[in-house]
Amino acid sequence: MAVYTDIAEDDLKWFLSEYDAGSLLSYKGIAEGVENSNFLLHTSKEPLILTLYEKRVEKTDLPFFLGLMQHLAARGLSCPLPLPRRDGALLGSLSGRPAALISFLEGMWLRKPEAKHCREVGRALAQMHVAGDGFELKRPNALSIDGWRTLWEKSEARADEVEPGLQHEIRGELDFLSAAWPKGLPAGVIHADLFPDNVFFLGDQLSGLIDFYFACNDLLAYDVSICLNAWCFEKDGAYNITKGTAMLEGYQSVRPLSGEEIAALPVLSRGSALRFFLTRLYDWLTTPEGAMVTKKDPLEYLRKLRFHRQIGSAAEYGLSL
Amino acid sequence: MAVYTDIAEDDLKWFLSEYDAGSLLSYKGIAEGVENSNFLLHTSKEPLILTLYEKRVEKTDLPFFLGLMQHLAARGLSCPLPLPRRDGALLGSLSGRPAALISFLEGMWLRKPEAKHCREVGRALAQMHVAGDGFELKRPNALSIDGWRTLWEKSEARADEVEPGLQHEIRGELDFLSAAWPKGLPAGVIHADLFPDNVFFLGDQLSGLIDFYFACNDLLAYDVSICLNAWCFEKDGAYNITKGTAMLEGYQSVRPLSGEEIAALPVLSRGSALRFFLTRLYDWLTTPEGAMVTKKDPLEYLRKLRFHRQIGSAAEYGLSL
Repeated sequence: MAVYTDIAEDDLKWFLSEYDAGSLLSYKGIAEGVENSNFLLHTSKEPLILTLYEKRVEKTDLPFFLGLMQHLAARGLSCPLPLPRRDGALLGSLSGRPAALISFLEGMWLRKPEAKHCREVGRALAQMHVAGDGFELKRPNALSIDGWRTLWEKSEARADEVEPGLQHEIRGELDFLSAAWPKGLPAGVIHADLFPDNVFFLGDQLSGLIDFYFACNDLLAYDVSICLNAWCFEKDGAYNITKGTAMLEGYQSVRPLSGEEIAALPVLSRGSALRFFLTRLYDWLTTPEGAMVTKKDPLEYLRKLRFHRQIGSAAEYGLSL
Repeated sequence: MAVYTDIAEDDLKWFLSEYDAGSLLSYKGIAEGVENSNFLLHTSKEPLILTLYEKRVEKTDLPFFLGLMQHLAARGLSCPLPLPRRDGALLGSLSGRPAALISFLEGMWLRKPEAKHCREVGRALAQMHVAGDGFELKRPNALSIDGWRTLWEKSEARADEVEPGLQHEIRGELDFLSAAWPKGLPAGVIHADLFPDNVFFLGDQLSGLIDFYFACNDLLAYDVSICLNAWCFEKDGAYNITKGTAMLEGYQSVRPLSGEEIAALPVLSRGSALRFFLTRLYDWLTTPEGAMVTKKDPLEYLRKLRFHRQIGSAAEYGLSL
């Protein structure tokens, strides 16, 4: 969580003059998002989020991300809506960086989500999958099987520092997933990072999804498996089947999963657990001590991966088959 | 600039239930204030700032700071107003820290203030000095002459690393100031840190003063000298007499300086330049490389100190005597 770039008031006013955003009353750098600098703006109209895209985001991906939010919001999904400039463009430039103005969503993310919230998340994820249909731009998932292998090669030599035997285990897992990864399942635009801090609630009501900066084209059921990993495990590592049932029922109330998708869930869940394990492992091994960043424990996802490996059928996730 | 403490939504709602603050819509950690954790809250009523006081702030000073803001706001100064709890207390507790809810001031601080803004700042500073009259609590200035010597002793041995000859120069300066420091000038509550980032403007209109966490009892004209140092020098180190004139005229339009105060301005300005030099020097020598904090160059204040040393009379600050 960081604000990387300071903005001068004059530059911001100049930037805003391209928009019909009202007059500026205040702006505060907010601790949200790891990849970008974000500011909360109060104006004489609605509050807005200003995002400056820092170097970790590929500039060529921005039309996909911003266009997707516009596409989804136009289809009724509650998500941040980019404000177009007077010339129609969604992207401007500020402090030497690509920058966008985006509607501010009220709501709070839940530190301790319950089963009823998982149901709402499942429903919203399915709504997003349905609403994404017809979006013209494409963005392949850089963090799917091929990407995992590339990422793994950067950490492989030091993996046993984290846990002895890890090198052997992950090599085997990658080989298994390469062979077993499902083909021909329904694909579309997925969020790919729908963790609790990216879902806002007002009371028990889901008020919106945010942070579409990992969104891409991939198997829809893979996105479901990411949410099972992100929402349905307890701090002690146990899978909470009540949450899993709620999540999957919520999802299927909007978009029923096919038999093939259901059968693939254990493999997909192994894949998504591995994906977060690998990025965390890489960060764990490369983030210098003392950098003011909270390192996330990669072993949390190794434990989830092992859980999915011993799953016999998707019924064990709480699905009534 | 940092947010140190995360808050769980449930804890925050529990905390807010002690206040008549409306229902919570969102809260964002904001990059404001170095000493504390600050959050911007949107509620069904007015937006609010939530401050968690971290360990660098003395708990016993909090009644002074919060009481002062209440006192000043009640006398018409535009500054953050602590919201009392239903039981009347200004201070609560959240995430194991003392915490307060404070009104949110719209406005922006100026990265490039002009003379007209300095005039407004001078006026507001004098308004604060007048409004502070009658405030019952006392807080001695820990960063006045005695405090400077204590601070200096922590950096003295390594001072010549920053600039050769510095040890000799600062020892002499401390001896001079101890002997020449004025006595008997009008005293009261001073802000003691009224830098540009603590003054908000809407357009060219000053909208409020913030950050009273260095406020204390000291000579009022010393506060004026802090503002001369903080507002009236250019990036190249030159004193901008147009800004100085505007600042002092603005101040005197509300509270005329006495002859003794005017005569003391060069010595007071040497003192306040030394005060910021010493804290910056200490931070410079003790902040580890790589800590995500912007180190402020202590030499900026050494140059200001040297400027004040060659001042013959306060007329050179732009005062028409």
